[in-house]
Amino acid sequence: MNLVVLAPIGATLALFFAIYFSLRVLKLDEGTDKMRDIAGKIRIGAKAYLVRQYKGVGIFFAGMFLVLLLLSYFKYVSVFVPYAFITGGFFSGLSGFLGMKIATSANARTAHACTKSLNGGLRVAFSSGAVMGLVVVGFGLLDLSIWYYILNWYYGSFPEAERIVYITSSMLTFGMGASSMALFARVGGGIFTKAADVGADLVGKVEIGIPEDDPRNPAVIADNVGDNVGDVAGLGADLYESYVGSIVSSCALAVAAGLSMKGVIIPLVVAAIGVVASILGTFFVKTGEKASQKMLLGALRRGVYFSAILIAILSYFLVVNVLGKEHIGIYFSIISGLVAGIGIGYFAEYFTSSQYKPTKNLADSCKTGSATVIISGLSVGMLSTSLPVIIVGLSVIVSYILSGGIENFNMGLYGIAISAVGMLSTLGITLATDAYGPVADNAGGIAEMASLPAVVRERTDALDSLGNTTAATGKGFAIGSAALTALAFIAAYKDSVELLVKQHNIDFAFDLSIINPEVLIGLFVGGMATYVFAALAMNSVSGAAGKIVMEVRRQFKEIPGLMEGKADPDYATCVDICTRAAQKELIKIALLAVATPLVIGLLLGPNGVAGLLAGATTTGFILAVMMANSGGAWDNAKKYIEEGNLGGKGSEAHKAAVVGDTVGDPFKDTAGPAINILIKLMSMVSIVFALFILSWSIL
Amino acid sequence: MNLVVLAPIGATLALFFAIYFSLRVLKLDEGTDKMRDIAGKIRIGAKAYLVRQYKGVGIFFAGMFLVLLLLSYFKYVSVFVPYAFITGGFFSGLSGFLGMKIATSANARTAHACTKSLNGGLRVAFSSGAVMGLVVVGFGLLDLSIWYYILNWYYGSFPEAERIVYITSSMLTFGMGASSMALFARVGGGIFTKAADVGADLVGKVEIGIPEDDPRNPAVIADNVGDNVGDVAGLGADLYESYVGSIVSSCALAVAAGLSMKGVIIPLVVAAIGVVASILGTFFVKTGEKASQKMLLGALRRGVYFSAILIAILSYFLVVNVLGKEHIGIYFSIISGLVAGIGIGYFAEYFTSSQYKPTKNLADSCKTGSATVIISGLSVGMLSTSLPVIIVGLSVIVSYILSGGIENFNMGLYGIAISAVGMLSTLGITLATDAYGPVADNAGGIAEMASLPAVVRERTDALDSLGNTTAATGKGFAIGSAALTALAFIAAYKDSVELLVKQHNIDFAFDLSIINPEVLIGLFVGGMATYVFAALAMNSVSGAAGKIVMEVRRQFKEIPGLMEGKADPDYATCVDICTRAAQKELIKIALLAVATPLVIGLLLGPNGVAGLLAGATTTGFILAVMMANSGGAWDNAKKYIEEGNLGGKGSEAHKAAVVGDTVGDPFKDTAGPAINILIKLMSMVSIVFALFILSWSIL
Repeated sequence: MNLVVLAPIGATLALFFAIYFSLRVLKLDEGTDKMRDIAGKIRIGAKAYLVRQYKGVGIFFAGMFLVLLLLSYFKYVSVFVPYAFITGGFFSGLSGFLGMKIATSANARTAHACTKSLNGGLRVAFSSGAVMGLVVVGFGLLDLSIWYYILNWYYGSFPEAERIVYITSSMLTFGMGASSMALFARVGGGIFTKAADVGADLVGKVEIGIPEDDPRNPAVIADNVGDNVGDVAGLGADLYESYVGSIVSSCALAVAAGLSMKGVIIPLVVAAIGVVASILGTFFVKTGEKASQKMLLGALRRGVYFSAILIAILSYFLVVNVLGKEHIGIYFSIISGLVAGIGIGYFAEYFTSSQYKPTKNLADSCKTGSATVIISGLSVGMLSTSLPVIIVGLSVIVSYILSGGIENFNMGLYGIAISAVGMLSTLGITLATDAYGPVADNAGGIAEMASLPAVVRERTDALDSLGNTTAATGKGFAIGSAALTALAFIAAYKDSVELLVKQHNIDFAFDLSIINPEVLIGLFVGGMATYVFAALAMNSVSGAAGKIVMEVRRQFKEIPGLMEGKADPDYATCVDICTRAAQKELIKIALLAVATPLVIGLLLGPNGVAGLLAGATTTGFILAVMMANSGGAWDNAKKYIEEGNLGGKGSEAHKAAVVGDTVGDPFKDTAGPAINILIKLMSMVSIVFALFILSWSIL
Repeated sequence: MNLVVLAPIGATLALFFAIYFSLRVLKLDEGTDKMRDIAGKIRIGAKAYLVRQYKGVGIFFAGMFLVLLLLSYFKYVSVFVPYAFITGGFFSGLSGFLGMKIATSANARTAHACTKSLNGGLRVAFSSGAVMGLVVVGFGLLDLSIWYYILNWYYGSFPEAERIVYITSSMLTFGMGASSMALFARVGGGIFTKAADVGADLVGKVEIGIPEDDPRNPAVIADNVGDNVGDVAGLGADLYESYVGSIVSSCALAVAAGLSMKGVIIPLVVAAIGVVASILGTFFVKTGEKASQKMLLGALRRGVYFSAILIAILSYFLVVNVLGKEHIGIYFSIISGLVAGIGIGYFAEYFTSSQYKPTKNLADSCKTGSATVIISGLSVGMLSTSLPVIIVGLSVIVSYILSGGIENFNMGLYGIAISAVGMLSTLGITLATDAYGPVADNAGGIAEMASLPAVVRERTDALDSLGNTTAATGKGFAIGSAALTALAFIAAYKDSVELLVKQHNIDFAFDLSIINPEVLIGLFVGGMATYVFAALAMNSVSGAAGKIVMEVRRQFKEIPGLMEGKADPDYATCVDICTRAAQKELIKIALLAVATPLVIGLLLGPNGVAGLLAGATTTGFILAVMMANSGGAWDNAKKYIEEGNLGGKGSEAHKAAVVGDTVGDPFKDTAGPAINILIKLMSMVSIVFALFILSWSIL
């Protein structure tokens, strides 16, 4: 039964390899002085942003900490809750921070490695991505284990079933902290990166006609900083919370499923197996010179597939040993999650890669102008929701039935929750393939700005162009696992409310039927909340981008010699504008996420809250997939035209494609990927505040 | 108890006044020969389209009729079902057809009346709108009454409770026919009108730079035809099914609520009261010369408010007399629906009128180009979902509680259903204010093409510009009532399944809890279905618009003297292209609506179907509001710029605004307004096929 110890061991191994990969990257040469200089500027900008963000986050966390302290004083939550909340936030932020640190150190080194060979560049960029992946899973698993041991010791005198309930409910608060931090990192980073990107492109590419990453563009450093704070730090914090959330939610269902401690061991050890498999998988990622897109993608995929197969094999022995052959259905739940993850990734590629029909047709619609590109892009995104929904639906029903849900409902729920753990078990390596994209993107920027030979830019472009595809895959994982986890969270919410009802002798019984008006209104409000959330995030981008446009225009007008390349632009002001803009709306957005379940709870009671969570998950899942895929398809349609198709760069079709890409930016990198965090944060807020809501609700 | 007789009396009155208003419009002068000629072309085009559409619809209806015959042969449905289905479709289509007939006769007459006075023009356009409104409520109520009497006679020997169940379940099939027809009319008409509109604008306004409605534009007649087949015929069929659906669904809940026949009388008589109130209300719509936008809107509103107040007064006596003072809560449910309808209309105006901040800000975002317009417009639409959701949520909970839902759950459901009847009780006049828009729009087109004096165009423009606001209101009604009705439909579905389970001794019990995986998957699939549906509709528009662009370009190139106004364009070809394009995808879209609940039913059983309906309602409600309001805001932002703000016509801001408007067209006039039909059609298909699903489902 001491298999739980594999979790901290796996975590330590992950962190050890993260250090190993870091050192390997850091000992490489950063290249010319010019390259060092640019990389330095990006690093400074990224650090400045994060420092400022942590200040904003600090205020929010301090406020929430006080609220939770107060609640724990009045016995609405356990004494651990405020501290678990803080540590969850801390480690989520730390994962993002470390990932960003290595990414900003690897960009120039990747560019430099590309002067020698494509494989060299791939190895550097991918290694830095692997650091991120391993830091996320390492810290996630380490912190879960530490809390597990602390809580297990503290509640040691309670009977096992009760003890597990206390352990897992405190661990949920840990998840709430992680989700809060992830929301700030994803949305804040997303606003920063897209404001800079959109602003830089609108003036640079569209108005003035200078190429992307041209050093004369005052927003170019901000754009590169954005890749790091949004697509690296934001991504890391996001998937940290997904990872932790999926593990915690299955632990929370272990008791109800009748598996008691064994049910807690399984997700923790599956995660540990995944860590080891991911580490081994990273060594399979390499490529030859003159590799095509397909071969490069194959190189990344090889690592992921190897890890997935290894996990599939090892989990079998785990399940049979811990739960016995009669629970082999749990093993198939894990597999169904693994397969669903790969399926979602595959179809994200189908809908967003210019090698397939949807994006080709989208590029074609650029010929009739920007309006048709927008309509077609939205259609592609909307149509693309069908397959992930079907895949997740299949995974839900398959894991439910195979794990024995028909005889034992709670066992079925546990099966669904564990399938989300299966989906995210490869996170160490899938996150590496995802986080490597922005590093390659930055390397390309540095190559351009430092005027390196054309072959270098070609190589970095080859690496970068995969980024959109792997990023779409990563987003698919995050939202797919959120959809799988949703049911577990609602069930966990129900379980904790029912426990409280019993303990405090409260007069309340659930009626979660969809024809209960409270539930129905909850569904509506949950759906609406995701729309309002997405709108606020997109508005922030468009407001901030507008400011960048003004600033870039101003610099081109007021700095003499800038256009001719004789004077340097003022990069720092653009970085500063993005930084401030990103923080401005964040508190409002975070409060929306926290306040919505509380307000609905106080007005409609726990039935309304459960409806809210289901509504947010349904609408949010579909909206997030649509936003990610529309955005990816627009981006790649633009790249497809830039490769010389349909008139190439500068044609009318290209101008239309740029409009599509610009609309897609906040879709795919700000609003879309934050929705899964919103859903989980609302779930965890509901659980943590359950007793408070129960005591004060009107209905 | 003979109050039901008020329904056919009200219906006859409505049809009588429809004839009266028709004759009054038709006896007016159509103006110059040129005007007659243009109006004739529009009439011919519209008729050609409808003839073709009815052929397509005919195939679908014939197929469904055979399927239903087969099902009734095998006793899966009652013997009336195939015929009720056909008549529902027939009357829905007829309502749209007659509305369109009068609209195409009123356009030139409105233009001619505008040569004399604004009030004259308003009266003509509004009278023709009133014909449409009264035809819809008249036929709706008449057909319901006829079926009621037939079925009541046929099932006369059964005990009352059982008899009502048989009556209402056959009447639901009548609703299914109406919804099927509405789907064809709304989506087909919507594709036609927006393909023509977008195509005409893209080449005419953007590429060649000729004004809107310029007679040289080959697509100009198609554009005007589209206003009639989409915004009139489609709208009529749509609201016909909403109206019938809301009445039928509350009748269906009467027995479960314990009200028996009295519960059937209430919705029918409330509707009859609404008819009378609407007729009286139409006489309050008049205006002075030199009326501002606000005064014109006030003129329309006066009629609606008068009707609403009259309904509020008369319903009180109805409820007290029929149900007694102890059920006064039902009266408040009616009022809550009435108020909610007005509230939704008001906020639709707030978010889409250029007099308020959201659309002003949207217009402002045009300064930074088309990408920011799109992002901001989507944000406006997304944010605008909040208030309708809150209003509908309040209406649901208020009518549930006040009608006594806390003690008697089914009574509460009945209260919610009756609130939808209350919302739609003013339909006779709200539909008139809505349908008058396209007539005024057409009148403007004719004024332009027939080179009437500028003052005429000014007057028609004044009338037309309200059209966007009243249209947004109409759409708000349709989707708001759909959201209110949804719960009733799901409950009706549950009731009919449970009855069948008892009758046929089937081993099935509902578990509609949102943590039942079948329900959750249903939620996901329902949400996804609305997205796929919207995507298919939008794709059809963009495909057809592309063809129109090619054709218009071709004509300008190949017809010598066209640009100089010396040769006539070939209008008929453009009409024909739109006609064919609109029909092409329709069968596919209709099959999606019919097949989805069947497939989910067969795979997941009735729990999955109920989840599907809830998911489609949640996601569809929010998506429809967003699409309607984004579209309305874009349109009015463009108009605001065209009025001379932010650089006016021809400026860069205007070009960006045109892109927004073009994207908004399929949003607000094709996909968005069809979603409420999709939701109801899926509900009714589920109910009609319930026994079949029960017998053959896997789970």
